[in-house]
Parts: sequence; structure tokens; C-alpha cells
Amino acid sequence: MSRKIYLSNTDLEEALSVYLAKLDVILPSLNKEMIPAWEARGRMTGSPIFAKISSPNHNASAMDGIMVISEHTYAASETTPVLLKEGLDFAYVNTGNIIMDPYDAVIMIEDLVEIAPGEVRIIDPASPWQHVRPIGEDIVAGEMILPENHVIKPMDIGAILSGGVKEIQVYEKVRVGIMPTGNEISDHYDNLEKGKIFDTNSWTFKAIVENHGGLAERISPVADDYDKLKAALIDLAARNHIVVVNAGSSAGTKDYAADIIADLGEVVLHGIAIKPGKPTILGIVSNKPVIGVPGYPGSAFLVFEEIVLPVIQKMQKIMVERAPKVSAILSRRVVSSLKYRDYVRVKLGKVGDELIATPLSRGAGVTMAIVKADGLMIIPKNSEGFDAGEEVKVELTSDMSVIENTLVSIGSHDLIMDLIGNIMAKKTQLISKHTRYLSSAHVGSMGGIMALKRGEAHIAPIHLLDEETGAYNRSYIARYLGEDFTLIKGVRREQGIMTLPGNPKGILSVGDLARKDVAFVNRQKGSGTRILTDYLLRKENLENKLIKGYDREMTTHMAVAAAVESGTADAGIGVYSAAKAMGLDFISIGFEDYDFAVSKANYDTELVSEFIDVLRSEELIDIMKELGGYGI
Amino acid sequence: MSRKIYLSNTDLEEALSVYLAKLDVILPSLNKEMIPAWEARGRMTGSPIFAKISSPNHNASAMDGIMVISEHTYAASETTPVLLKEGLDFAYVNTGNIIMDPYDAVIMIEDLVEIAPGEVRIIDPASPWQHVRPIGEDIVAGEMILPENHVIKPMDIGAILSGGVKEIQVYEKVRVGIMPTGNEISDHYDNLEKGKIFDTNSWTFKAIVENHGGLAERISPVADDYDKLKAALIDLAARNHIVVVNAGSSAGTKDYAADIIADLGEVVLHGIAIKPGKPTILGIVSNKPVIGVPGYPGSAFLVFEEIVLPVIQKMQKIMVERAPKVSAILSRRVVSSLKYRDYVRVKLGKVGDELIATPLSRGAGVTMAIVKADGLMIIPKNSEGFDAGEEVKVELTSDMSVIENTLVSIGSHDLIMDLIGNIMAKKTQLISKHTRYLSSAHVGSMGGIMALKRGEAHIAPIHLLDEETGAYNRSYIARYLGEDFTLIKGVRREQGIMTLPGNPKGILSVGDLARKDVAFVNRQKGSGTRILTDYLLRKENLENKLIKGYDREMTTHMAVAAAVESGTADAGIGVYSAAKAMGLDFISIGFEDYDFAVSKANYDTELVSEFIDVLRSEELIDIMKELGGYGI
Repeated sequence: MSRKIYLSNTDLEEALSVYLAKLDVILPSLNKEMIPAWEARGRMTGSPIFAKISSPNHNASAMDGIMVISEHTYAASETTPVLLKEGLDFAYVNTGNIIMDPYDAVIMIEDLVEIAPGEVRIIDPASPWQHVRPIGEDIVAGEMILPENHVIKPMDIGAILSGGVKEIQVYEKVRVGIMPTGNEISDHYDNLEKGKIFDTNSWTFKAIVENHGGLAERISPVADDYDKLKAALIDLAARNHIVVVNAGSSAGTKDYAADIIADLGEVVLHGIAIKPGKPTILGIVSNKPVIGVPGYPGSAFLVFEEIVLPVIQKMQKIMVERAPKVSAILSRRVVSSLKYRDYVRVKLGKVGDELIATPLSRGAGVTMAIVKADGLMIIPKNSEGFDAGEEVKVELTSDMSVIENTLVSIGSHDLIMDLIGNIMAKKTQLISKHTRYLSSAHVGSMGGIMALKRGEAHIAPIHLLDEETGAYNRSYIARYLGEDFTLIKGVRREQGIMTLPGNPKGILSVGDLARKDVAFVNRQKGSGTRILTDYLLRKENLENKLIKGYDREMTTHMAVAAAVESGTADAGIGVYSAAKAMGLDFISIGFEDYDFAVSKANYDTELVSEFIDVLRSEELIDIMKELGGYGI
Repeated sequence: MSRKIYLSNTDLEEALSVYLAKLDVILPSLNKEMIPAWEARGRMTGSPIFAKISSPNHNASAMDGIMVISEHTYAASETTPVLLKEGLDFAYVNTGNIIMDPYDAVIMIEDLVEIAPGEVRIIDPASPWQHVRPIGEDIVAGEMILPENHVIKPMDIGAILSGGVKEIQVYEKVRVGIMPTGNEISDHYDNLEKGKIFDTNSWTFKAIVENHGGLAERISPVADDYDKLKAALIDLAARNHIVVVNAGSSAGTKDYAADIIADLGEVVLHGIAIKPGKPTILGIVSNKPVIGVPGYPGSAFLVFEEIVLPVIQKMQKIMVERAPKVSAILSRRVVSSLKYRDYVRVKLGKVGDELIATPLSRGAGVTMAIVKADGLMIIPKNSEGFDAGEEVKVELTSDMSVIENTLVSIGSHDLIMDLIGNIMAKKTQLISKHTRYLSSAHVGSMGGIMALKRGEAHIAPIHLLDEETGAYNRSYIARYLGEDFTLIKGVRREQGIMTLPGNPKGILSVGDLARKDVAFVNRQKGSGTRILTDYLLRKENLENKLIKGYDREMTTHMAVAAAVESGTADAGIGVYSAAKAMGLDFISIGFEDYDFAVSKANYDTELVSEFIDVLRSEELIDIMKELGGYGI
């Protein structure tokens, strides 16, 4: 069993510059091809485009009116009007009509008095060529309309055709071969076999290539078999300009990518000092770039954008541009390794006047963090990270107008949050100028309270039991947030113990959670459900260490339900709607108040008002009835 | 002959808001359709997308190493290592592999000592579920992956598939019917009949629609015939969500668009207080928006972007966003009518530290001004315009990085300028980090001197004859620019009289220009060629008023050549290369120096150095030999 554990730790810029310099020497130019001008949107010119004819190609009237022989009008003045006769002195023209011999000027319709059919009177002389668009006013034959290596915009197409050019030379599109690999990777999307995961990166890659004007050839996942992988790579490299091998670039027993690239050509570099994305391979096969991109979606997406895209754009002769940057206040401390440049996805929110950046999950595989992110924060190598409250630069991946119209909710998780967001967006699209969005992060109730205090969020969904009074939420606001904050009453929801359908372990109450044959799955510290769980265990005089799985923490109701449903735990505590969604049995513990903490300053904003409107809407009540477990 | 001269003069915002409010009531929603997730790039979700399965859908190893039964490892410590046996205590796993019963934790390969095949030693206990990605870590079944009305990005496609969703519901694409009209409009691009002009707007419109995710149905130009136009409009409206009628919206005798829209439905508004673009029609036919867009390319492009696009985006439920704005110093005064909002295309240049905005031609039909523009300056209604030196806001239509790497040349026209630009872009793409561009505006030599003085340009091409010394250019720099400026020696080029092939009027010298049977076409005041012309006429003691056509001014050599070639003038003065390009006869007057004025501060910049390199390059010399008329 051979394992290659040691990769290099080269800086991204250095890695790219070494690699691109190598490619410079060997990379063939893109071919050029002729295409009709009207199909040229977004293509790059392969040679300068010169006008074949002038536009207009004749002297044309610039106005609606009459064309005249200017000499016949010279005598005209207010005191000595001149009478012009149709056919003899003038002819009617509309804008764009050709000015023919013997006519050499145009008088606007507004400056005429029509005396009789075929007779008009004028009081101003027309100077030669007045209101006449001369030949070539717009484009002169021979003029360069577009230079070489120009990306064609809509208006360019009009200009090319104006110049009488029907076909133009453009560079062929860059072709990128995309090769997902791995025994566990499947693209039978109808049915996921046990132990497999879907191939998703290749489709994301394809869309990125297409967004950048390239053509992607994606093949089905190739098994971890040296010969099959090698054959597939040879095949893809024969037809494409660039090949991307996804996964197999790491140090596992079946990570063949580097060996195969070395076998067929050269591994220029293996291992880059970025996180995520370290086990990246920069290789060359048959004078073509072959890049090994790690398998986790987070790494894969980042490496594709940071490394593959610059290679594509080098071939396209397009300058690589980073997304525009904004300044934001970091809401939480982010720690970074000195050894790597760290890429952290952040959610941005305009809370009050400040743009707040909240770091999202940094696990290598966290797809949803990327989907929900508004920006990318880069922590340089040799930096230990940034502190909460620090001003940081964030590269925007969402539109600023969307960010400014997003209600930021951080706190406890409930299934209704996403649904409220959906209703909000639909409603506001119809009634207000800006669509309002809801961004909802799940960090537990206490996490929400703290986020609200730090100004990261507009609202914090909470369900915090005060053990002394038995009441929910208000006392926590008083204790942790103070007078500047208040509560929006939300919904009542049912908490209980979730078990597999049929409750095979016969769990009837909280006391059963301490049984030796019962594996529990817990929620994270600071979540309302954890506080409830601890309260219930104390009431039963059960020590935490008696509960098998007490330390196994999930961050949402659905994650707890998923752990139970998969059989890795026998019981977990969560809301009815989650148990129902996963088809689990549910032993009720009771109802609790799921409310929203908000600062008084934000309470009256449009964003929060619209949220409250949706919270009280018939539409949401209907949805909650369907979900079940809500007291309405 | 019925003419509708009077149009309304409604403000753009009011017009759009009245129109969109009307459309709000009648506009049907877009239909929804199911498509495979992997074809969803850029489409808009028609309903929220919920995960069908969790991702991962099993507990998966997060590391390369071994999966173990955690209880078997608890005793491990540095002093009491634990020996694990394959099959009994552990199994090898790679990242992503499923964690199967009875295993519940993973130990990294780095933390193992392999003693013998099938035996490893550990010195740290493994806690349950360590290095295990739990089911649903990325996405939990039932979680909302994307809300409704979300435009799908590449990473979203990966997330949708991760959630086990193969097909998604999206809105159909907005279909826009595009109907060019006019007897003079042709789409036989192989051969332009006399008096006709090519249909170019419809293709620009189509590209804009496609850039915004819509589908365009373009038909061939429809003649100015009431019944034909009506039939075509009915036909297009039946198949499309929006119809654009191009041209025929004005007040000419054949401008039927408004009548036909009123006939079939309603003209909501005719005439908008913008310039260009006033004669726009906002109509409704069969509950569908029908917009009459003026014919001139400049008006057409602006009205499409300012009015048609917001209607398309309203149907798409996308917020309309204006391009980002930058501040720039206006180089010349721009006068505007109080009655209209004025849209002025500008060229931007980074000269020294300042961003300079130079207004481009404002004729309604000036295609090339739009192609060359970097931004759009909006002058509000009720403003008389802006002064030179004023700071103005410009909406960017080019990338700032391109603008910053563009050498701005303003001055005399020569055919080599475009060619130099082309060589510069090609060369710098290979050798430097940034591609360098050349933007070249033709305002004559004196115009160039003044532009340089105002800081609008990096260089000014000039060919100015000093009548006293007979030398070129240097004395003008001393007189108008002073010590801070210098001269880059350029090329020598031949000036002469251009006539039709065969010289039918037998023009032999400057003296013949005064003949009664000779129509002349002149260059604009301040151009080097005009100064030369006036000098030559004075030398012959010919008064300007003796020259027929002396007041007819063109701004480039090619435009003069085009006027001669079309027969509207018998003679014009210009360079040999222009005469040759147009196939004209040429009576030589002599050689002149075409040089480049530059400030000493800019002389040493990279941009100017690269320009000089190209000026001295073999490649340019070869091109000049081919053009002819250059003394090398």
C-alpha cells in the first residue's frame, strides 16, 4: 500500500506564475474560425475588423421634411419668403431617405408652410448639406471597427454589420475536459446507492466554464483504477485544451492522479498553500494543462476559480479580474493557520449603517455555506486571522443590492425560517421596489442572542426556557441584551423525543435516554433545545455522563433527525416538524415559545416590518398546519 | 399626407412608472417548466428547492486513515499504546468512504504506526464520531437549498444535485419579438442596394436580450406598409411576451407604429424627455408590452437599455441595476437642453492620477461613438450641461482595468493609429501583465494640442505646418503647450488632392479647386490638413469664397475620401493612404511630418514607451509600406 503523504506547500501566486510560465512556452494558440456577425455575442475577435462599406453608404436625410436644391433657397427671408414646388425644387423625405441629385440639403417639416399640395413656403435659406447625414458619418469604409482580441458586446454586432461585414474571424472557444473520479462517485441521480455520493462538482465546473465563454466536455465518473483513469485522461486531452481531474489528487491509497499525470507528462507542482485546496496538482500532458482538483465541493469550487479559471483565461487572453471588494466589520474572530492562505466564505448583512461580515462554516465540504455566502474573505499566509470588530476586505459574490435588502436572522433553527424567507421574497417582489430576502443562520438561541448583541443580525430566533419562572425568552433578553432590545412574538411549537419509526427501543420518556442500550444524539451548547435537554435531565436527576452520545452534537433539528433516521443514534430531542419531515416517531415533551429578539432601533425598519407581516400571514399559518407541531 | 408632429415630453421615470403600473395589472406571469438541474445555469427558480436526500447520505470518513470502534481505543496513551488488528478493530478508509457498523470513528493515517500488514499501533484514543462527516453535514434532507425566484449560479447546481434533486422548476425564458421596419432597411448583408441601409439594431437587441437570459425572435425588416406592419405585429405578439418595433415611431409620413398599436390595443405614451430617444412609444397589445423604439442606432440602443430592458426584467422579477459609477473630470463643456435628460457617451482615460471623461459625438446615429465609449454620462433635465473641469459621474460600460491600461490619443487622424493600437494590444498581451490599448479620437491637430493642454490625452498626433519656417509641429508645441511638453517623432506622409478614378474633372493643381465646375470637400477648422489647405489657397491667392464646398467640413481623411468616392464632391485634400483605400486618384502636394505631442511627465510612462516601441517596430513599417504614401 503506497501512500504519498508529503505535498509541497507553494504559495498560490508562485505556483500559478511557475505554471503559467511553463504553459507560455508550450501552450498552442487557440485556432481561429469564421462565424456570422450576428452569432458573435461574447466571442473574441481573432483579427481586427475593418468596415467594408461606409455607413450610411449614401447621403441620407437626417430629418423628416423635404430635400431641396440649396441654391433655390438662398433668397428666402422673413420678408421675402420663397415658394418651392415639388418635383422642381423639392421632394418629400423621411429620416434616413437617400438624398439624390440634384438635391443637396434638407429642410425640416417644422420649418415649412404647406401652401397647397406640392407647394411649400420657406423663410430661411438652406445651407448646402444641412440636415444631411453624409456618407460615412457613422462608419467610413476602411475604418477599424474592432481591434483584435476584443470581446464582442451587443452594440459591436450592430457596428460590424453597419460596416458591411457579414462574417468575422473569432477565436474558437476554449474546450475544457472535466473528469470526475472515484469509486464512491455516482451520476445515477435517480437513485443513490448506499455508500455513494453524487457527482456534483463536474456540473458546477461546467457551468463556470460556460459562464466564461468556454465549452465543457464532462464525462461520467471514472472508477479508481489506474488504467481506466489513464485511458480517460488521454482521451479527454486529445479533444480538449485543458483537462480537469476531480478528486484523486490527495494522499489516499487510491489517489492516482499525480502518478498518472507524471506517467503521461509532468507534474509541475503538487500542493499549494491555500485552505481549502491544498492537494492541488498542476500538470502538463501532451503540452496541455492538466489540473488535479481536490474532491470536496468547497475545495473543488475554490481551486477551480483560483487556479483553473486563470489558466482558461490565459488561453482566452483575457485579464483575470477579482470580484469587487467591500469593507465590512467582522462579527466573529476567525483563526487562521500561519502556513496557508485561508479563504473564508462570509455572509454580509447591512445592520444599521454597517456592513457586517459573518464567517460561514469552513469545513472543506460545506456546499450550503458557499451557496449562502455573499463574499469571500482572504486571510493571508503568515496571518493568525482577524479579530471580531476588525474591518476586513470582502470580495463580493452577491449583488450589493441583494445584500442591502436582506434581513439577517441568526439564532435557533426552525423549518419555518426558510419558508418565511420564501414568502417574503415573493410578496415584496410584487409590492415594493426592492425584493426583500431573509438569510437565516443556525447557531442556536444563545448564539443568536450574542450575534444580535454584536450587531451581526437584525433578528435572533430564540426559544430559551427560564427554569425559575418556566417562561420563555423575555428574561434572557433582559439579562443578555438589555433595554435596547425587545421581543417579536413568534410561534408555539412542540418539542419531543424522536425515534425510528415504530420506536424499536421502546423509549417512552426522558429517563429512557440513560439506558445502556440507547444511543443519544445531542444538540450543540447554547441551543435552546440543549438547554431544554439539560433541564429535563436535571429534573430526572440524570448525570450527563450516563447518557451515551451526550457529547455528539448536531446544529439543527433536521441534523438530529437525520442521525436518528440513519440508525447511528436511537433518540434525539427536537421539534415535531423535523421528526415528521424525516418520518420518525415522536414522543411529545411539550410546547415552547419560538420568538424573535430584535433591537428597538431595527424594530421599525421596513425589513423587520415585512418579516412581521409574513409571520402573521394566512399563508404561513397554512404552511405551519401542514408541517404540524405548531400551536397556532 | 398625415403627419403627427407633436409627441409628449414625459420624464423617463414617470413614463416607466406609469407604464409598469399598467403592465402590473395585465401582465401574465411567466410559465414554469421542469428542466434537468445541470442545465439550470442562469435560470430562475420557479419554486423553492428542497433537498430530497441528505449529503452525505451516510456517515463518511473525513480523512484518509482507518475506521475504528472507538471503545477499542480508549486505553491508548503514549505510555500504553494500543495495537489494533485489521478486520477485528479497524478497516482502512479513504476520505469519503462510508463508515459502517460497528465502526464509529476515524484515525488519521498520520497518527498510526503500521507495525505489520494488518496491524497498527496508536497512542491516542479516538472519541466517538471523530473525523467522521455525519449524515447531512452538508445538506439535510428537507432543507431548502434555494428559494423561489433565485437566479442559479454554478455552485447552486452542485448543491441541488447534492440534495438528490435531478429536475427543478424554473421560469420559462422571457421571449422578445424584434421587428425591424422601414422600406430602406435591408438584411441582405451580401450586397447593399443603393439608398438602403443595413438592419443592425435588431441584432444588437437580440444580443442584449440573450445577455439577460431571454430568448429573442427577430424577423426580417417589414416594409412601411400599414397592413404588413400590423400583420407582423399581431404575429409576433402571439408568440412572444414583449414586442419591440424598431423605427416608425417618429413623426414621418410613414411612421405607422403608433397608429397600429392604437389600432390593435393602446398607446400608453408617445414621447419621452430623453435625448437621444424622444420618439419612443410605450404601448400594449393583447395584454403584452409593445414598445416602439426609434431607428437611429444611438437612440435605439439607449431606449432598449433604458426602457425595454426594465420591462424584460420586470417580467423576470429581477431588480434593474445601473452600471457602477465613477467620478471623472469632464474635459470639455457639454451643453444640454433644459427640456430633456441627455445621455452622453464618454471616453475615459487615466491621465496622470486623474480620470478624464471626454464626451463623444452625440449625433443620434453615431454607432462608433458607442462602440468606443467607456461610459455614459447623464445630464438631468433642467440642466444646461456641465463645464469643462467639472467633476461628473459616469456609469461604466467598460472595465476599469481596461481604461487604466489605455493610451489616450486625441488629435489628427491617420490610418496607422488603429493599426498601432492593434499591434500594441497583441504585443503587450504576451509580454506584460496588462494588455495595453490605444484609444484614438480624431479632432484635428489643433484639437489635439488643446486636449493635451487640458490633460484629456496622453499623446496628440499633429501635423502642423509653420508657414514662416516651413517646418512642422515644434513651433506649435512651443507656442501652445510650453516647456513641459515635447515631441515624439512619428512618420512622414504624403498629402495630395483626391479625385474620382481617372480624374474626370482633370484637376491638376490647387488652382483647379476654384473652378466653377469643381465641388470641393474640406476638413474641419483646426485640423492640420485644413491649415495646409488654407496655406495652399493663400499661396495661390485664392479667396475661400471662390471654392465651392469650402464650408463642407469632414473630420477625417477617410470621410473626405468617401465624399469624393460617392461623387458629392469632385476633390478633397488628404493623405495618400486614404485615397488608396478608397480607390481614388491622387495628385501629390508633398510630404509632411505626422508626429506626436506628449507631456514630459507622461513621456516616460510604460504606456507611452510601449507606444513608441510599436511606432518603431518592423511590423508597423511593413504595414505602412502596404498602405503606401509613408516616407520611411
